[in-house]
Parts: sequence; structure tokens; C-alpha cells
Amino acid sequence: MKNTVTIKDVAKKAGVSISTVSRVINNSKPVTDEIKKKVLDVIEETGYVPNPLARSLVTKKSQLIGVVVPEVSDSFVNEILNGIEEIARMYNYDILLSNTYSDKNEEMRSINLLRAKQIEGMVMISWDLAKEHIDYIENCGIPTTYISKTARDYDVPTVSVNNEKATYDMTNHLISQGHKKIAFVMTSAGDTRLEKERLDGYKSALAENGIEFNEELVRYGGVDYNSGYESTKDILEKGIVPDAVFVTGDEAAVGAMNAVFDKGFSVPNDISVAGFNDVKIARMYRPKLTTVHQPLYDMGAVAIRMVIKMINGEEIEEKKVELPHRIEERESVIKK
Amino acid sequence: MKNTVTIKDVAKKAGVSISTVSRVINNSKPVTDEIKKKVLDVIEETGYVPNPLARSLVTKKSQLIGVVVPEVSDSFVNEILNGIEEIARMYNYDILLSNTYSDKNEEMRSINLLRAKQIEGMVMISWDLAKEHIDYIENCGIPTTYISKTARDYDVPTVSVNNEKATYDMTNHLISQGHKKIAFVMTSAGDTRLEKERLDGYKSALAENGIEFNEELVRYGGVDYNSGYESTKDILEKGIVPDAVFVTGDEAAVGAMNAVFDKGFSVPNDISVAGFNDVKIARMYRPKLTTVHQPLYDMGAVAIRMVIKMINGEEIEEKKVELPHRIEERESVIKK
Repeated sequence: MKNTVTIKDVAKKAGVSISTVSRVINNSKPVTDEIKKKVLDVIEETGYVPNPLARSLVTKKSQLIGVVVPEVSDSFVNEILNGIEEIARMYNYDILLSNTYSDKNEEMRSINLLRAKQIEGMVMISWDLAKEHIDYIENCGIPTTYISKTARDYDVPTVSVNNEKATYDMTNHLISQGHKKIAFVMTSAGDTRLEKERLDGYKSALAENGIEFNEELVRYGGVDYNSGYESTKDILEKGIVPDAVFVTGDEAAVGAMNAVFDKGFSVPNDISVAGFNDVKIARMYRPKLTTVHQPLYDMGAVAIRMVIKMINGEEIEEKKVELPHRIEERESVIKK
Repeated sequence: MKNTVTIKDVAKKAGVSISTVSRVINNSKPVTDEIKKKVLDVIEETGYVPNPLARSLVTKKSQLIGVVVPEVSDSFVNEILNGIEEIARMYNYDILLSNTYSDKNEEMRSINLLRAKQIEGMVMISWDLAKEHIDYIENCGIPTTYISKTARDYDVPTVSVNNEKATYDMTNHLISQGHKKIAFVMTSAGDTRLEKERLDGYKSALAENGIEFNEELVRYGGVDYNSGYESTKDILEKGIVPDAVFVTGDEAAVGAMNAVFDKGFSVPNDISVAGFNDVKIARMYRPKLTTVHQPLYDMGAVAIRMVIKMINGEEIEEKKVELPHRIEERESVIKK
């Protein structure tokens, strides 16, 4: 990269020494307001960009926060990223993003890549985070907030919603609409901790309403469209016609609706379908998807805010942040 | 950040000098194979991470490529990013991502942010790139590939599809299916160059088939769902019932289908709807969207490959890469 203007040029033009320019840039030692203004004017005028490597060595600040994501193209991740990015920008931090494709080895590689880039902090988003990765991050001393169910069991900062309560609430909502035979398609992608929470929420809503739990109505799948499609198709092909299908992810719920259509049923007249997360597709699909609204943007915003506080040595009042969810009633669930 | 193992530890354990370890790490001066192996074994064993700042100062390589995107949550951008990321990883480059929200000032800020982070190269994705931004990037000497229609007029590396031909092909396809009154909703977000190309493609297909151009059937909008919805609603509310609606973006085409539904018509029985890009929603929505397939993953892959070649001083055979498109026939267009 060509560097057109140097610190020497700036110093010369402002009529000050190089170390004075350096002081202004790094805010390292007091400089009179008049000189500061003069230097900043010249920097603006010349378009001078301080050498960030040399500067990093002096200030030891990269102004860089790493974000590890399981899949950048996933809508859930995307909406969290929007929150992270906007708050980062507000605090003048840049984001270095690394995609793991939900692969354990790639995840460790991502952590090390970001570490090698001198990130000051990290947001770690992972469907199924290994305990040893948490240990590794904490041993490295990188201020990190985790958006990951696994991490909630450990004494590290996490942002989440209450999955058990949210699942309970939606199951209860379906029951209140007259549905009894409720198929339950989990999109937990092998995260057994999350699976247990969701299953507990589903089961306790059934139990409280005197509905017997039926294992045949439950499926364990991944987060994507196809997983919801195949699970629901499988239920219908076993000759089971549920009153409602509750899928714990929106894209997978759209897959479920399509499976219902392809098997010759209608949504919501024959079978109601409910989702989880409230991402864009929930509002774009017809019928519009009734779903659990998760405050994804806010989750990202809160996570990065915590990281920035840790970097600045500020106190974090609450290490385990749980954000509120709500049932978003749309068109895919009707009273039976 | 704590650094548990230092270069000193590695040198001691391998029984060599610090400068020998440095030579091995930076590949800077010849070292015997035996000593090289010994050092690498110790590095592996101890999990030593070289100090990247110090190392960057020596090698002047950050192994970092910047990507400027107009909107990280847009599916078009997302699929391009997948291509960029996978190829970058293959060549051991990391990606620093900066989101501009399609704002001109933010775009310049993004360029400068990435520049300050010592990126070795850049992929610039922009709906409506200002000439002065291209000039600025080229003046800075950052090896850059552009995925932007505007950039195609300038002597810089670009990756694109032939928008005029693709629009012509889809219009022709609709005409071949018996449609004459074809509404045309452009999602060009103020990119007049792109608008002109698309309008030319649409017009020439009409002209070749002896169909008169009717300005009332044309709308100029943005890339999002709402834009397609409102434009199509507006056409229908003016009492015009087209045979088909051709929307130059898939999310906006889904919006168009919903507007058709909401006005009491069916897709495709009453009105056919065609899209452009072939992103995920085109396959998830019902009816499945007939659309122009753009090789988005490949566009990202080719763009970053060109950047890496430029960084390495390799020759680029073709500065203006145009990738092939095709008509993807699904369910939203039927023979009239």
C-alpha cells in the first residue's frame, strides 16, 4: 500500500515536531489546544492516515473486536450481527469476522486467527461450543461475550433468551388455541443442552394442560429449511396428522409449511405451524409465520457493549443477560 | 491479551537462537531442513503464536483482505460473501468486513478504516459506487476487485453478469410463455447505469417481438421486499392487470407475489411473477420463484482470486470478468 502523506509531512506543514504530532494522534501527553487544532487541521487537509502498526505498538490498542460466527449467511446470525456492527461503529471499533461453518476445528482456527490479529475483545456466537474452547479463550484473557447456550453453564458473560420459557410459552399458546396433538420439531443441531431446555418447556406446557407426551410427535433436526421440511414430511408420512407443528427455527418452520402443502394439507386451516426467532422470512412468507420473537438485534448490541465495557475495565453489573421474548401472532396459527 | 509462550521459550526448547526461530517463522533466510523441522515441532508442541504486530513489521504482510459491503444481511451480498470467505481461507487470508448501509459517507469511512488496518487487498461491493471512491482506492494503490455496475466503466478489475442480456433473456422467456403485458419493476436503488442496462434489455426483447413499450408498466424501486410489494400494489391499484410481473430482485419479487395475492389474484394462474439473482428465498417461497440465476458464490470466489493474484504480482488475464447467467424455471411463471 502506498503511503502518500507521512507523519513528517504533517509535522512540517503544521510547523511542529514529529513527536508533537504523535502526541496529538495518540492522545498520549498534553498538548495546547491551539497546537492540537493546527495538527488536526493539517491531518484533515492532507488526508494523512497514521501508520496503524507503529501506532498499535505504541498505544497497544487495535480498536478491533473479533466476532466468531457459525454461519454468516444464517438469518439468525445476520440479525445479531447488525446489532454488533452498529454498536461497534458507535464506539469506534472495527469488526473482524470469522466464519466457522459450525465446525469444531474451524472454530479453534477462527479463535486463533482473531487472536493473532490483536483483537481487543470478542463476541463468540456458536450453536454448540466446546468447553475447551471456552477455557482456551478465557486462558488467553480475551474479553469475550458468548451467545451460546453451552456457555451459560460457565462463569463467563453470556447473552441469551430463556429458551425453556419461550418454548413453554409457545406450546401454551398453541394449546390455548385448541391444539392438542402438537408435533415438535427441534432445530438444535446437536446442542443437547438447548434440546433439553426446549423439550422441558414443551413437556411442562403439555403436562400442565393434561396432555400426554408422545415421543412420536418429536423430531430432532438442524437449523435449516430442509431439516424442517424433512422432519415434518416424515411425521405426515407416518400417518400422523397433528393439529399443529411447532418448529424451533423460522426457516425450518417455512420448510415445515411447505411439507404440509406438499402432502396436500393447508396451513393454517388443516394444520397450524409456529416458528421461533422471528427473522425476516417469518414476515415475508405467506401465510405469515406465528413465531417466538427473539430480540436478535438487541442480543448483538448488548453482547458487544459488554465486551467494550470489559476492554475499558468498566464493571459489568450482570454477567448473565437474559433478554425478553414474546409470542408474535401472525397467520400460520388459528384457533381449532 | 496474555501471551503464554514467547519466541524465547521456543528458541530455548529447540536449542537454537531467537533469530533462527524468527527466520523459520518468516521464511526470511535459509535454514537447514533439520533445524526448521525442530523449530516447527516445538512451535506445534508449545502452541506458540508469533507476535503478529512485530511479525507484520518484518514481513509487511497482514494476510488480511478487506471487503466493503452495502448490507451484510442482504441475501445477494451473503451468497457472494460465502464465495469470498471460502477462497480467502483456502489461500490463508483473513477477511475484514465493513458494512456501509449503502451510505456514501459510510462507504468512504469503510475504505479508510480498512486502509488503516493494513489490508493487502480489497473486494468492493457497492450498489452505486461513486467515481471519486474508485479514484481514491486506486490512488491508495490497494489491489481491489469491484462488484459494482458503476465500476465497469472504468479501467479497474470487475466481476459481473451481463445485466442487459439477462434482463433481455427473462423478458424473452416471459414472451415465449405467451405473456405480452409485462410489468417491469426495477430494484436498482438509484443506480442509473444499471437501470439503463435493464431497461434496454427489457425494451429490446419487447421490440423484437413487436410489443409496444408502455411506461405505465415500469416502476423504479429499491432492492428490498417492500419495494417490490409497493410497486406491484401501485400497478394493480391503477387498474392495470399485467400478464406477468418481472422484478429484478428475488426478495422484491416475493413482495410482488404477496401484493398480487393481497389484491385477490393468484400467482401464477392469474399473473406470472419472475425474479432475478436466485437467492435462497427463491427456492423457499411457494410458488417457487422462476428467476435469473446469477452465479453469486462464483462472483465472490473470482473477485477474491483476482485480488490475491494482484497482491502476489501475478498477471490477471482478464480485467473485466463476466460470468454466465441462466433462466431458472420454477413455479411462478406459467404459459398463458
